[in-house]
Amino acid sequence: MSTQLEQLFDKLWPINRSLTGDGNRASLKLLSETVDIEIKEVASGTQCYDWTVPAEWNIKEAWIKNGKGEKIVDFSINNLHILGYSIPYKGKVSYQELISHLYTLPQQPTLIPYRTSYYEKRWGFCLTQIAFDQLDPNDIYEVFIDSSLNENGSMTIGEAYIKGDSDEEILFSTYICHPSLAVNELSGPLVSSLIYQKIKQRPKNKYSYRFLFIPETIGSIYSLTQYGNFWKEKLVAGFVVTCVGHNAPFTYKKSRRGDSFVDRAAELVLMQDWEETQILDFFPGGSDERQYCSPGFNLPVGSLMRTMYGQYPEYHTSGDNKSLICFKTMEKTVEVYLEILQLIEANKKYVNKFPNGEPQLGKRGLYPTVSTPKKKNSQINAMMWLLNYSDGTNDLLSIIKKSNLHSSSILEALEVLTNAGILE
Amino acid sequence: MSTQLEQLFDKLWPINRSLTGDGNRASLKLLSETVDIEIKEVASGTQCYDWTVPAEWNIKEAWIKNGKGEKIVDFSINNLHILGYSIPYKGKVSYQELISHLYTLPQQPTLIPYRTSYYEKRWGFCLTQIAFDQLDPNDIYEVFIDSSLNENGSMTIGEAYIKGDSDEEILFSTYICHPSLAVNELSGPLVSSLIYQKIKQRPKNKYSYRFLFIPETIGSIYSLTQYGNFWKEKLVAGFVVTCVGHNAPFTYKKSRRGDSFVDRAAELVLMQDWEETQILDFFPGGSDERQYCSPGFNLPVGSLMRTMYGQYPEYHTSGDNKSLICFKTMEKTVEVYLEILQLIEANKKYVNKFPNGEPQLGKRGLYPTVSTPKKKNSQINAMMWLLNYSDGTNDLLSIIKKSNLHSSSILEALEVLTNAGILE
Amino acid sequence: MSTQLEQLFDKLWPINRSLTGDGNRASLKLLSETVDIEIKEVASGTQCYDWTVPAEWNIKEAWIKNGKGEKIVDFSINNLHILGYSIPYKGKVSYQELISHLYTLPQQPTLIPYRTSYYEKRWGFCLTQIAFDQLDPNDIYEVFIDSSLNENGSMTIGEAYIKGDSDEEILFSTYICHPSLAVNELSGPLVSSLIYQKIKQRPKNKYSYRFLFIPETIGSIYSLTQYGNFWKEKLVAGFVVTCVGHNAPFTYKKSRRGDSFVDRAAELVLMQDWEETQILDFFPGGSDERQYCSPGFNLPVGSLMRTMYGQYPEYHTSGDNKSLICFKTMEKTVEVYLEILQLIEANKKYVNKFPNGEPQLGKRGLYPTVSTPKKKNSQINAMMWLLNYSDGTNDLLSIIKKSNLHSSSILEALEVLTNAGILE
Repeated sequence: MSTQLEQLFDKLWPINRSLTGDGNRASLKLLSETVDIEIKEVASGTQCYDWTVPAEWNIKEAWIKNGKGEKIVDFSINNLHILGYSIPYKGKVSYQELISHLYTLPQQPTLIPYRTSYYEKRWGFCLTQIAFDQLDPNDIYEVFIDSSLNENGSMTIGEAYIKGDSDEEILFSTYICHPSLAVNELSGPLVSSLIYQKIKQRPKNKYSYRFLFIPETIGSIYSLTQYGNFWKEKLVAGFVVTCVGHNAPFTYKKSRRGDSFVDRAAELVLMQDWEETQILDFFPGGSDERQYCSPGFNLPVGSLMRTMYGQYPEYHTSGDNKSLICFKTMEKTVEVYLEILQLIEANKKYVNKFPNGEPQLGKRGLYPTVSTPKKKNSQINAMMWLLNYSDGTNDLLSIIKKSNLHSSSILEALEVLTNAGILE
Repeated sequence: MSTQLEQLFDKLWPINRSLTGDGNRASLKLLSETVDIEIKEVASGTQCYDWTVPAEWNIKEAWIKNGKGEKIVDFSINNLHILGYSIPYKGKVSYQELISHLYTLPQQPTLIPYRTSYYEKRWGFCLTQIAFDQLDPNDIYEVFIDSSLNENGSMTIGEAYIKGDSDEEILFSTYICHPSLAVNELSGPLVSSLIYQKIKQRPKNKYSYRFLFIPETIGSIYSLTQYGNFWKEKLVAGFVVTCVGHNAPFTYKKSRRGDSFVDRAAELVLMQDWEETQILDFFPGGSDERQYCSPGFNLPVGSLMRTMYGQYPEYHTSGDNKSLICFKTMEKTVEVYLEILQLIEANKKYVNKFPNGEPQLGKRGLYPTVSTPKKKNSQINAMMWLLNYSDGTNDLLSIIKKSNLHSSSILEALEVLTNAGILE
Repeated sequence: MSTQLEQLFDKLWPINRSLTGDGNRASLKLLSETVDIEIKEVASGTQCYDWTVPAEWNIKEAWIKNGKGEKIVDFSINNLHILGYSIPYKGKVSYQELISHLYTLPQQPTLIPYRTSYYEKRWGFCLTQIAFDQLDPNDIYEVFIDSSLNENGSMTIGEAYIKGDSDEEILFSTYICHPSLAVNELSGPLVSSLIYQKIKQRPKNKYSYRFLFIPETIGSIYSLTQYGNFWKEKLVAGFVVTCVGHNAPFTYKKSRRGDSFVDRAAELVLMQDWEETQILDFFPGGSDERQYCSPGFNLPVGSLMRTMYGQYPEYHTSGDNKSLICFKTMEKTVEVYLEILQLIEANKKYVNKFPNGEPQLGKRGLYPTVSTPKKKNSQINAMMWLLNYSDGTNDLLSIIKKSNLHSSSILEALEVLTNAGILE
């Protein structure tokens, strides 16, 4: 499996992605090999609430040559060298003019920054501070950018859908607009594709599952125009899948609601099994969760990450590359996503049909017939919690939390009691 | 008083008690010397929600002899030697067969475990691991159990009732089914009997008091069939009295509601005067509180203990004997029960008849006429708290808690202000 | 400004103040030089709920002479020497009789206590323990008190009012009944007068502002008879201004409601900028807040102090004099009051007119057009918090608290977004 993930990573890595363009199409096509993705085109100019789908951007070649004709910055070497959405340009410029178009990281002189200018027309290059410092102020530079901005183009997005017993759905949203960045973002589509496969394999799903592979911000805002009102009624839980590349403790960022199923299930699973887990209250920064959780929708969408955006020094630089990624950890992350889903799917307000005193478990073979020694085993304990609190007002997640027992014990006891006709 | 308690203990100790049987009758008769107990018989076979009152069990003699005819285990030496509810048996058995009927505590080799088999017919003996290890695998053993299970018998329970001004009632429930165990259980009936005497002596009681001396589980479930619906309307507070034998800090286990009068009063009294007190949220294990607090009734019943069941190593073994008991501490425990009752009885939402600004206490002789030095005395402080918060929405318990004053100061101030016609 | 405050202090200091009398008139007249005070007379005997305005007390001269005719205690030297509201007296008394009229502080032998007997007729003197100890038990003492208690007099109070756009009002209440005490009380009227000036200077006020300069307790209870019912509808926030003299950390005592605008705004301002701040829950002691927060009114009135009454050793003694006072700190305190007012005035439930996804700030020039480096600047962050939570249910104070940002950032962002027509 990690081999599969790594191979997919290696294929996706060199492709130049952005809000729009052929790189996105190629990436979605590659992902289609494992996920049954429907690829959609949204025309440039499409209005999405307060936003407009931008012109489609493509780029073939871009470089800067010094006076000696040597290429000193070259997009063909690293996608990050070009300012995203740079307009076409060809010409000779002085040092002074050139540097007004250059972006560096003075504090991290060996790294190329990742920068874009989606919504204002300009051109620019990103380079290391070291390379910048070698520029000769007296030289004249030749700049060439063979890009295009097509107002009649489109934004390309991918969707996959697994139909469940109910049309209530669970959303996985991940983004595909960052070129050659590993943790943020390739880890997101990779983990999402693996979750897709696991769910697809299950014989039966209670809820339907929707996977979105979209550019950040404009992609999720567009999706809200399509599904936002439906989701207000039908979205059980959602995740923005991003920053799941590090071999590092989990960070879970809650939805704006703070107590939706996804928040409570994620907190339970992480707190019971994972030390050093960080549980963060919602804050209106970060990624697409701030669109899904905008006040007009306020959807139950959280984000389960390893090391979060902005919390590692290589974030949004050329340092965010394969060397940061642990493919084995991604698989473990997928397991945790599935554990959380299991709780969300099982969550309900069960009712104990024998609410007056406790039901006699012994006569049903569910309780030892010789009185037990001091410590009850945890399954009897789990049954007692379920029986006492299943009064139609407490849902499963709240009983697990109250009991301080492992969710797996409660799920087992739930099955036993449901099969015995005691809980319903 | 401790002499009285100790004498009663010594008389009750040797009697073999169980869910049913003559030992229970004899025990209740002994308790009747100090408590005005009505003894009731509940016929075997009586249906109690999901449970059925079992056949009446009595036992006269039970032993195991080795090949040499020596009694190696003998019920007449310790009641715990017989598995509770053992069926009659007489016969010779091999070592292999015998040991399938024996119960020991390998980790506590000098102690006899306490075990029962109420709801499945079998016979067995409990013995120390040391005695077990001395059995000869090649010997043939003679087993004799002169017991009877009478389907036409009954379960014997005891009730006492002190009528108060109101038919709203306060419940004390304690159990009488453990043979020759001291902390758990003889401390419970002993402390209950002393509480009974103290309340009976009072000239006047606001609430009525009911005391139940019953076998665990089936006894409380039976009582719920009798009083459960009445209690839903009329039970102000209740206690399961158990594990009050140790000279050790208090443990209070809250009712399932968590904020009923009994929970709030017990917490206040314990926190203000007793260091190292443990206040536990309800959990659906333990004793009869889990029946009283079952979801169909959810009664305000907590449990005030010293060292709790399961929290001391001798629990449910022959080590739980008189050596663990402190009779002086039991008397102190009764005082604390009475302090809690005092708060419960006084608890009400009082109304300050002078709600606009503060009433002028000085002109009523309730405030020093020369301005006081820096620290107000605590009674004036207590009056201020009562006056300010007695707006008909805060009850006495909440005002005590908010004030952080000792409940006795507030109770004194309450009397002063009520007598002055300021509070009502 | 501190010069102005200090000059005013020096003028007010020697005047003898009490619940009533010419000293209070003189003090209010002095305050009128900076505050537009309306001076009102409330006739002695006026009923105020459970209280009655007392007779007017004035005093010209009061002393004790020893047998040699030496004045050993003299009111003309320190106002505190006379027990407040002492009745007139002239006569010779034995040592034994004399000392039943003397008040000292044995634990602080160099300080004169501050004592009154407003509501019971008696005479007395306050002196240092050192002076007391020098009295000769065999001497005969001459006592002279030239005071008067006029049943046809009045209680003098001062009010100032600044009309705002709305008749909803904000109250500042400070007291003027303590003679020659610096922190408690002259700091209160001084700070109040400075707040008055600052608000008066503002071109426009959303709310109206009322300032009360009154004797403690009877003054506020009287004011409640006048404005209490109006305030129940219209009081947005109020402060009892007292104990603002020390150069020491702030103490904020919450209103009884605990979550009124004034409580939340004061807590935010203090916690973000001031270490060692103490935030206290309401308690029904202290000063006039316990009248304003009496259950009949329960007004949103808190108290922003530096070192609180009772928390410094010189409290209510002759040690509470100018040496404790820092006039510079008073000015800083006024600034903090104004910051709190700013939040209270701005507080509202704003509505984001672009609730579906986030509005595109870039096209309005409110967001950088080149993607920003790792840390967003705090103004963008503040805009995000306002946009996401301005859904009509969260008010400004709650958004500031949730965001953990400095209130000034949020206020700036609020202005930007309001001007851009995004928030309303």
